[in-house]
Amino acid sequence: MDAIAKDMGAAAPAPTPDFDSYPIEHRVVHAEPIDRGVRVVWDDGLETRHHVFWLREHSADPETTHPVTREQALALVDIPADLRAEAVGPDQAGGLWVRWSHGGHETRYHPGWLRTHAFESGETLAPFPDRVTWGREIEEQVPRFDGPAALEDERRFAEWLEAIHVFGVGILEGLPAEPEVIEQVPRRIGPIRTTNFGFLFDVQSKPDADSNAYTTMTLSTHVDLATREYQPGLQFLHCIENGAVGGDSVLADGFHLAGLLKDQTPEFYEVLTTVPLMHANKAKDTDYRWTAPMLVLDGEGELDEVRWNPWLRAPLSAPLEQVDRVYRALQHAFALAEDRENQLRVRLQPGDLLGFDNRRVLHGRTAYDPSTGNRWLRGCYVEREELYSRLRIIARHARAKAAS
Amino acid sequence: MDAIAKDMGAAAPAPTPDFDSYPIEHRVVHAEPIDRGVRVVWDDGLETRHHVFWLREHSADPETTHPVTREQALALVDIPADLRAEAVGPDQAGGLWVRWSHGGHETRYHPGWLRTHAFESGETLAPFPDRVTWGREIEEQVPRFDGPAALEDERRFAEWLEAIHVFGVGILEGLPAEPEVIEQVPRRIGPIRTTNFGFLFDVQSKPDADSNAYTTMTLSTHVDLATREYQPGLQFLHCIENGAVGGDSVLADGFHLAGLLKDQTPEFYEVLTTVPLMHANKAKDTDYRWTAPMLVLDGEGELDEVRWNPWLRAPLSAPLEQVDRVYRALQHAFALAEDRENQLRVRLQPGDLLGFDNRRVLHGRTAYDPSTGNRWLRGCYVEREELYSRLRIIARHARAKAAS
Repeated sequence: MDAIAKDMGAAAPAPTPDFDSYPIEHRVVHAEPIDRGVRVVWDDGLETRHHVFWLREHSADPETTHPVTREQALALVDIPADLRAEAVGPDQAGGLWVRWSHGGHETRYHPGWLRTHAFESGETLAPFPDRVTWGREIEEQVPRFDGPAALEDERRFAEWLEAIHVFGVGILEGLPAEPEVIEQVPRRIGPIRTTNFGFLFDVQSKPDADSNAYTTMTLSTHVDLATREYQPGLQFLHCIENGAVGGDSVLADGFHLAGLLKDQTPEFYEVLTTVPLMHANKAKDTDYRWTAPMLVLDGEGELDEVRWNPWLRAPLSAPLEQVDRVYRALQHAFALAEDRENQLRVRLQPGDLLGFDNRRVLHGRTAYDPSTGNRWLRGCYVEREELYSRLRIIARHARAKAAS
Repeated sequence: MDAIAKDMGAAAPAPTPDFDSYPIEHRVVHAEPIDRGVRVVWDDGLETRHHVFWLREHSADPETTHPVTREQALALVDIPADLRAEAVGPDQAGGLWVRWSHGGHETRYHPGWLRTHAFESGETLAPFPDRVTWGREIEEQVPRFDGPAALEDERRFAEWLEAIHVFGVGILEGLPAEPEVIEQVPRRIGPIRTTNFGFLFDVQSKPDADSNAYTTMTLSTHVDLATREYQPGLQFLHCIENGAVGGDSVLADGFHLAGLLKDQTPEFYEVLTTVPLMHANKAKDTDYRWTAPMLVLDGEGELDEVRWNPWLRAPLSAPLEQVDRVYRALQHAFALAEDRENQLRVRLQPGDLLGFDNRRVLHGRTAYDPSTGNRWLRGCYVEREELYSRLRIIARHARAKAAS
């Protein structure tokens, strides 16, 4: 029961409700109303089904999608419960045309948009590559990138960001060893997250240190701000000076360590994924506490993040036997992180900008002797989701360029 | 097998590894080594057990707890696996004294600290009051506070913060109607969270709006930034001008709405707590997406946050029957939020500073007519955990004052 699109003159596909342009690889050849929806048949034989509310609220017309904000302007509560597609059919552009049961309203759907968003097509919005976990072998091929070139070309900038996604770590080399670089470069990804340690932080030995990071002592590998519900997603450290003896950067892949625990000592993995541990800071003017397992799993049992800090755990409140199980697991896990075979050790050069996923990759340093020279890293935090947003935008630009 | 503390001259309790002072209400009368720990008997007969590692790593001495940062300076991996408490006993201050099996090292534990942190004492670190959910009846007693007085006295400031915790909403009245207030007041809680909408944002009608908030249209109640993994915990809106016809603020307690759904329509509650929905923004330079149920439960099945935004959902990719179930649940839920009986409607006066828990309380506004006057709210975000840190610090100050 196909109807013919009345607006036969409009050969160009209707605009889509978001900014992506969707390639037209298939066209609608047949459509018909079904209970609560519309059944669509495509030129390759695929059948897709679309709910009336779904079609109605994702229409691209200006009454439904605000023409400037691109957000929905039609409230779901205002769609009549008994709305039906009264007449449907392919339009000339190969998309779908619908006349609604209420008000004679008509809407059209771009064939590329409709096909991409159809459940039955199995297509998904540009996925990111899989993560690759690592031990010491990553030292043979540290993810390093030409800093000035990355700032000139956003596709090269994206390669650095992709390394931070895939490996959890990436270094931009050859940037100026100037204090303002740390503000300028990460900000190209997204807003910098200010914390109680400031908008930017200087990792130097300080006389009135409010964190072990600001001493000259060895720093065991750890993630920052495990005391927070929202651990910072990304951390950036820009090396301005590194002339002291010692002070090499030490990194370890927390997801690799979790994998070792799971494979080799499942009883410890069980403890660390289930027993809530409180981390607490002890500063003079802040008192952050957060309680969660050290290895946080998502709803599917997959590792979501590590909350790994050897020196900020609050005293565990549990029966003695439980405390014993936890300490055995913690001591084993921390020893794995200190095992040279699980570490990436790198000496940052002035001008290097190290970026890493702070909810996955642990960082630390060897002790250093401040009498032998200056060591000055300047850091900041950016959320992980800013990186994904930036990668999607750069990919969108590339698609638009390819299409033009 | 009690031993006698050797340092008999030290009547004052040993310092504790954090900044809180713990009242001494009970004293240790007996202690003895047990397998992997120490058994302690108190003057009221309570018996507590403390793991050797737990005692060792939470010692207050400067080799264990860094005297400036107060963070652990002793690495857990460096504690010998066979460490034992060789000799233990009460000390003169009523605390616990331990001589360790390795190196002749001795440590002491403040009785108030030890008792508070003992699992068997059942004591917990200052809990916050329970949340109180609400519908329209809250209009009879809107949580309002004297703004200038709260800025003068941190205990009164804390009352406002506690209201934001308990009710999810609180208003400071009578502040200057000046643009800089929004930066000055929330910053007293903790750092302001910058987003793609800026460090501060101005809610006014804008010609090139990148959010429905920046139009004059009705805004259905919603939380901000449901497109992010990390929805902002707290939102503050300071009213600078409110002279237009319309533009009243509308709030609804998402936890109350979730309770109604659970009680009245459990099939919808089931859908909204289990089916992942993607929210996506559609701006020109950002592309944030996050997928989670609209009502997010924690590991115990308790409501943790709501991700409630009627106009930022991405097209749902699911079989038609699933889509139908979701739309029925969404339409019902959104209608509950629009029901006047579930709303707090308030007209902000110039100088009012509205704070609310953005992961719990929905906000919106009635449409307004910009030809009748100006409407200008200035807003910012702060994380929820900053509020809890600030409340703990204010309570710590009060304890210190009471003790002095």
